[in-house]
Amino acid sequence: MENQERLDRMRRAMEADRLDALAVRLPENVLLLSGYWPMIGAGVLVFPREGRPVCAIPHCYESEASLSLWEAEPAYFRYGVLGAPEPGPALRGILSRAARGKGWKRIGYEADFEVVAPPWNSGEAQVPAASTREIYRAAFDGAELVDISSFLQAQRRRKTAYEAARIRIASEISSIGLEAFERLAGVGASGVEIAAGVEREIMARGTGYKDAFRVRAYAQVAVGPDESAIGYRPNEVSTLRRLEPGDVALLELGVVADGYWADRTRVRVAGEPTQEQWKVFDTVRRAQQAAAAAIRPGVSGAQVDEAARSIIRDAGYADFFPHVTGHGVGFGYHESLPKLAPGEANPLEEGMVTSVEPGVYFKPCGGFRIEDDVLVTGNGSETFGPFRNALT
Amino acid sequence: MENQERLDRMRRAMEADRLDALAVRLPENVLLLSGYWPMIGAGVLVFPREGRPVCAIPHCYESEASLSLWEAEPAYFRYGVLGAPEPGPALRGILSRAARGKGWKRIGYEADFEVVAPPWNSGEAQVPAASTREIYRAAFDGAELVDISSFLQAQRRRKTAYEAARIRIASEISSIGLEAFERLAGVGASGVEIAAGVEREIMARGTGYKDAFRVRAYAQVAVGPDESAIGYRPNEVSTLRRLEPGDVALLELGVVADGYWADRTRVRVAGEPTQEQWKVFDTVRRAQQAAAAAIRPGVSGAQVDEAARSIIRDAGYADFFPHVTGHGVGFGYHESLPKLAPGEANPLEEGMVTSVEPGVYFKPCGGFRIEDDVLVTGNGSETFGPFRNALT
Repeated sequence: MENQERLDRMRRAMEADRLDALAVRLPENVLLLSGYWPMIGAGVLVFPREGRPVCAIPHCYESEASLSLWEAEPAYFRYGVLGAPEPGPALRGILSRAARGKGWKRIGYEADFEVVAPPWNSGEAQVPAASTREIYRAAFDGAELVDISSFLQAQRRRKTAYEAARIRIASEISSIGLEAFERLAGVGASGVEIAAGVEREIMARGTGYKDAFRVRAYAQVAVGPDESAIGYRPNEVSTLRRLEPGDVALLELGVVADGYWADRTRVRVAGEPTQEQWKVFDTVRRAQQAAAAAIRPGVSGAQVDEAARSIIRDAGYADFFPHVTGHGVGFGYHESLPKLAPGEANPLEEGMVTSVEPGVYFKPCGGFRIEDDVLVTGNGSETFGPFRNALT
Repeated sequence: MENQERLDRMRRAMEADRLDALAVRLPENVLLLSGYWPMIGAGVLVFPREGRPVCAIPHCYESEASLSLWEAEPAYFRYGVLGAPEPGPALRGILSRAARGKGWKRIGYEADFEVVAPPWNSGEAQVPAASTREIYRAAFDGAELVDISSFLQAQRRRKTAYEAARIRIASEISSIGLEAFERLAGVGASGVEIAAGVEREIMARGTGYKDAFRVRAYAQVAVGPDESAIGYRPNEVSTLRRLEPGDVALLELGVVADGYWADRTRVRVAGEPTQEQWKVFDTVRRAQQAAAAAIRPGVSGAQVDEAARSIIRDAGYADFFPHVTGHGVGFGYHESLPKLAPGEANPLEEGMVTSVEPGVYFKPCGGFRIEDDVLVTGNGSETFGPFRNALT
């Protein structure tokens, strides 16, 4: 058991919140509390404050689950084959047996996760909705069901050393994609070709890196000023537009390795950058470095944001940096805590992992953003998966 | 407006169920009723039985939304940038205005979609949970909120001609991946290399095919008997295991093109197949052809299943075909209707799209499955994106 700290912390928090048990179904939370990153999200983990957790898992994933579960007892149920019971009753039976005789009065569940990290097969997300709530009601008959969405997100904000190590691996793997991006983003390449190539490299070369078993990337490449400087937006569309000399290519990259996430961004100019493009790039790079350098326990999210924003403001680009400087990352592509944003008074804490991603977007120059994931350490910070910033 | 039939059908069904309006948030259902496939799922579509729908959309996706919306009026709200209102109140305001003075008494919403098709950025699914229900409650003050999950799935089971054409395009694009699979699955290649290459080809070459704008693939490649014949399971893991002479490579492939899905499978043997591998392959191929040939309106799911199963049984492999013959596909990778399975008495109907995917799995021979998507036509069937089956 390599992540005892997480389980100890969680049980202390459950005690403070008078939670007797948790029932979690989202892959990100099953991973958090069991070590197993579900294949499709068909199972449920029951995590009691006292005693051994039970994880209901489709029988066909036993080989993967048995290698990764920490302390939870697996309860395999036949799934996806002829003659298998309906999944609902099968889960209800397992949960009911796990709860029998325990006298649990308050049980937490994920009532309000609206942004979810997908399972291994991200073409089909599974989430707990009305049917899952009914299963809980029937299995935990008489117990009060309590929404623990905010509770879990708060618990997740500080990563244990074990978790930080796993997120660091995801970041290191994402650097494979940053290297491919440099190589692929030349004059004549289209956004889809670059994005598809970056994703391919990460899956093909990232799998197996430090024993990473299931690796996948989500790349979006905006090409030229119209695509990259549409203003800022959370997602780009990679299109058939080809890089012409002087065009920006902006890579937004999410990477998951066994359920742990990295979030990176790099920018390139095909051919010869203009003087203004060099200036914007240099500004964003300095802003990103300043924000990362400001990160340490006790500093507020607003202070870190201001470290980046003041540099962009001084360069005359204040109006072209319309978004926050960073957000939590690790158990998902974006996590709600911490926030690096104007007005964010909450202090950073040791173990937080945050993106640091200032950007400047205007036409015809293009959109420029640089993003790395940074761990808050005891007395400063560590940038995960270091990788150069090179405009050309 | 190219899909008026869908809107007319939906309004008739709403009348029969006394639904005054629908509020849908899942990308698959926003697409169904508006023509717009959301970028991240941050918006909501209000679809009234009478009058013009309203679609709340983050402002930064106006360029994509404006090109694809049919009749819905877009209501853009600032999102993801500094100074934007909280998304909850922004949505509540838009929905409240859409409902004002309409006297809606029963409004349907997605309370129980537990398997969801992801948005364009499948690294981060957005789903309606407790917060969305609270937004609906506040915006539709006094109206009864009704779960329409089963209602929508029933409505979706028969595709309109417009929808079938879009799903056909997704299947045709998936054939690009089947071709790449043939090329890549040679001795020495690993499962992750093959899967990554298949995904790359589909994104890079499928984007733009018949104007497809957003294309993504999810490939899983099992290599050798231990991976491919673990029994049947819904998802494989592509690993570092390399194809040795005589090994099976089994490709499970999901493809999405602008929100419409294809689900394909092919199998290869690297090097020289054994006589038994040829026999199993031939059996599965004939079973798949027989099932597809049995498809027409009025035939039950059980009859189609039996057309495939009897061939596999006659060949002596009955115990090694442990799953259903097919499932609905189109607005998601897997849809609940129709079902091609033993005991399934419901008749096929014109406009249904179903996978047809018999398989045989045992060691040391390997796992063999062949899958195509088939449209139920007025008097028979059409197999989408025809592509050869070649074992070597």
